[in-house]
Amino acid sequence: MAAAAPRPEVEEAAEPPWTLLSRQTDGEVTAKAPLAPPGLAGGKHRGICSRSYFLVLMVFVHLYLGNVLALLFFVHYSNGDSSGPGPAAGQEVSPDPGPAAPAPAPRAPAAPPTPALFGAPLTRLEGIKVGYKQKVELIPNKIHDVKTLSLKPLLFEIPNFLSEEECKLIIHLAQLKGLQKSQTLPTDDYEEAMEMIDVSPMDIFNLLDHNQDGQLQLKEVLTHTRLGNGKWMTPENIREMYSAVKADPDGDGVLSLEEFKQLNLRDFHKYMGSQKVKVSDLVRNSQHTWLYQGEGAHQVMRSIRQRVLRLTRLPREIVEHSEPMQVVRYDQGGHYHAHMDSGPVFPETACSHTKLITNESSAFETSCRYVTVLFYLNNVTGGGETTFPVADNRTYDELSLIQNDIDLRDTRKHCDKGNLRVKPQQGTAVFWYNYLSDGQGWVGELDEYSLHGGCLVTQGTKWIANNWINVDPSKSRQIHFHQEMARYAQEELEAQTEWTVDKSYKNVHVEL
Amino acid sequence: MAAAAPRPEVEEAAEPPWTLLSRQTDGEVTAKAPLAPPGLAGGKHRGICSRSYFLVLMVFVHLYLGNVLALLFFVHYSNGDSSGPGPAAGQEVSPDPGPAAPAPAPRAPAAPPTPALFGAPLTRLEGIKVGYKQKVELIPNKIHDVKTLSLKPLLFEIPNFLSEEECKLIIHLAQLKGLQKSQTLPTDDYEEAMEMIDVSPMDIFNLLDHNQDGQLQLKEVLTHTRLGNGKWMTPENIREMYSAVKADPDGDGVLSLEEFKQLNLRDFHKYMGSQKVKVSDLVRNSQHTWLYQGEGAHQVMRSIRQRVLRLTRLPREIVEHSEPMQVVRYDQGGHYHAHMDSGPVFPETACSHTKLITNESSAFETSCRYVTVLFYLNNVTGGGETTFPVADNRTYDELSLIQNDIDLRDTRKHCDKGNLRVKPQQGTAVFWYNYLSDGQGWVGELDEYSLHGGCLVTQGTKWIANNWINVDPSKSRQIHFHQEMARYAQEELEAQTEWTVDKSYKNVHVEL
Repeated sequence: MAAAAPRPEVEEAAEPPWTLLSRQTDGEVTAKAPLAPPGLAGGKHRGICSRSYFLVLMVFVHLYLGNVLALLFFVHYSNGDSSGPGPAAGQEVSPDPGPAAPAPAPRAPAAPPTPALFGAPLTRLEGIKVGYKQKVELIPNKIHDVKTLSLKPLLFEIPNFLSEEECKLIIHLAQLKGLQKSQTLPTDDYEEAMEMIDVSPMDIFNLLDHNQDGQLQLKEVLTHTRLGNGKWMTPENIREMYSAVKADPDGDGVLSLEEFKQLNLRDFHKYMGSQKVKVSDLVRNSQHTWLYQGEGAHQVMRSIRQRVLRLTRLPREIVEHSEPMQVVRYDQGGHYHAHMDSGPVFPETACSHTKLITNESSAFETSCRYVTVLFYLNNVTGGGETTFPVADNRTYDELSLIQNDIDLRDTRKHCDKGNLRVKPQQGTAVFWYNYLSDGQGWVGELDEYSLHGGCLVTQGTKWIANNWINVDPSKSRQIHFHQEMARYAQEELEAQTEWTVDKSYKNVHVEL
Repeated sequence: MAAAAPRPEVEEAAEPPWTLLSRQTDGEVTAKAPLAPPGLAGGKHRGICSRSYFLVLMVFVHLYLGNVLALLFFVHYSNGDSSGPGPAAGQEVSPDPGPAAPAPAPRAPAAPPTPALFGAPLTRLEGIKVGYKQKVELIPNKIHDVKTLSLKPLLFEIPNFLSEEECKLIIHLAQLKGLQKSQTLPTDDYEEAMEMIDVSPMDIFNLLDHNQDGQLQLKEVLTHTRLGNGKWMTPENIREMYSAVKADPDGDGVLSLEEFKQLNLRDFHKYMGSQKVKVSDLVRNSQHTWLYQGEGAHQVMRSIRQRVLRLTRLPREIVEHSEPMQVVRYDQGGHYHAHMDSGPVFPETACSHTKLITNESSAFETSCRYVTVLFYLNNVTGGGETTFPVADNRTYDELSLIQNDIDLRDTRKHCDKGNLRVKPQQGTAVFWYNYLSDGQGWVGELDEYSLHGGCLVTQGTKWIANNWINVDPSKSRQIHFHQEMARYAQEELEAQTEWTVDKSYKNVHVEL
């Protein structure tokens, strides 16, 4: 039975079309792995990116999809079988940059030689301290200020990165191409899948019970945004649901194991399906499209990619082989609740951009966006700030994001309470690293502090664009990706002279 | 009239003997500069390292020293005359490492060539994130863990940096050499100096009134530790003093400008002089000595210097030409209130280690300790932790260190309330950077988060040692320093074959 790839991140329809295509090629997953005993998740890392999060996510994805196989597969991994190679297998590193981990099942061992660039470490700009300004020459003979906004995440602001004319052109190109809804309303195709659920309430309870106190607090339920199937869950929603299914007789918002056991999970599902969902109830309320920046693209689009290259000082081929530009429009009432642009990486995780070329199958996939560059294309009349709710917090604790019915990730209600907000200013770029360094000059763990969102647009329209730079945390896979790219180019196969991302992309939209 | 160099930092008798010697060679300061108008400090940076802090410090040093000349000199600088070259003159840097600022008055333009090392940037270890562990080979074929304790300051812990035998040897050598009190009780030689004070109460008030609200809060007075003339001031002390001199009739701990104007500052002085001061009332209550680590030193002392070199990856000649090891003993009841190991750097500031060789005169001097490596030489029975009260705080605000009569810098009372405490563990080293990067691979501004102290030893004795690595924030001065060192060595002048620090040091104690 083929399992659709459960993906860890929030960007549902927001992902580029090539990712959607790739999902149809996922491999088989078998159900041989034993189910872990209840409580196995206790004592593990409990962040939004933790394995137990994945586990819970799977449980609930499967409440709808009716497929417990990938769950079992994941339980198998969570159960200690993480001996495979990979950057997240252990935090300890040797002091000198060692050789890259062996490429998992390289398809072409005799591929073209490794690009020379990969001897050098990936550059990370120095943050120095908040407020620090450094100068960069993004355009020959033109100096831009790069101001440090936070160290966690490592976040910078560059005023006048784009000219007013460039901003207008990008909006124009996006409109010509046409925008699509970033997230569609959930359907209830999954109802019948309920019948197939075969996970005990005890197991689900244990997975949800982050702090292992034998009770489910509201925030323990809320941190699992996937439970909402695209709908953003608020403390009020959960209370209403509890009330509707009579889950919480004493109305304190806390479910004991006894209360949880007496529930029929199908009642939850029926309730969820019966709720009228508006776009403003979704995780993301915006429209977007993709603009090509590779060879032959509009010279402004090319020029922006070159500026991003000079700004980040990352290897040219990595920047050139990254995603196209995403242009996003938020109308009045638009928002994007706080999220991370990329997912955590475990040994069994594949990157969307290298997965296609390395031809591996994996149930876990993320977009591996090392860097986000966000451009503000207009001045917004009201609202629409970019919020970084936990920027430069002393510690990161996912659960502490939700306190007393205030969910700091909620960008419709609580943007004012986060640590850092960037006001849209036409032409300004902000950029940050979604991953930490691995200490050896390559990509390390996901930076949990990179959590960010788009605040409610209270008046007018907000136009932004995103450039993501995709780097595989497995250096060997990234190198293999470039080798394959070079090989395709060498072979001059007609259908393969352009990189696969743009190819897939072409199939969906007319090129601009 | 010769002005003794007012020094910005707390380490009074704690400074190495060569610094004390150097203070006797300070140049003349004249009183030509006009006094700045009241309120000039308003709107400037208000950190513990701010210029206004210096200004206030001066006022009060001179309440005791009776010398307003250096104050006037400083006011002149504060009054906007900061056009001189120097790393702290502005935060903005060009993206590429530019040429170093011209050496101020180089004595020997045709000195030996610049050491090759100075082409490379000063290494800073990567922190990655709190809890991250990296491995280093400090001793051939022996791997040590380097664990990140905080990013602000950039702070690491290395267990088993020293063996038990090495710890015991260092203690033994220190005892053989003999320890001296780190800080002596204040004398009241300065009483007569009061007669010479010629600064208006209005000026003093404005300088103390950090938040410029027209009132002196207790914490505004407390942040100026120098007011105590070596005695650590607590909220209770200040209240008692106010009461004794009838400064605060309503007893709210706040002085209005009117209340302040009606005071006779001599009453303050008399009160301060009349107070019985115990060693436990001082900023620092410990004993210390210095152990030579240069050529010809005990092989263990040499070996530790080599390990520090491998740990920090700083240029060999910088490490070799840094201060000797300081060994400190805290008896039961000992402490060291929170302080910074080095001072801020302005264009007019000289570093103790390069000042001797560059032969410059400056009224402002600090020790320019880029890195502190602190070694725990024994396991302490009770207390004696190293506290970093503001480590990884989101923002640094000196005033917020004191809230509701709780002074987080007070290591006798409030160590438990700080952000980070390191428990002494025999053989463990911690090390941190007292300065930020300048973004060009050299030393930048003082890192205010490096504030740290030694908590009260509640039981037993605590032995630690410090290695400081001295780097002049003026790269050209540091290079000049090494050139001069090399020149002396070349000329083979008997008295100058060893570096000046050790020379001065020799004059004070018998060498070990």
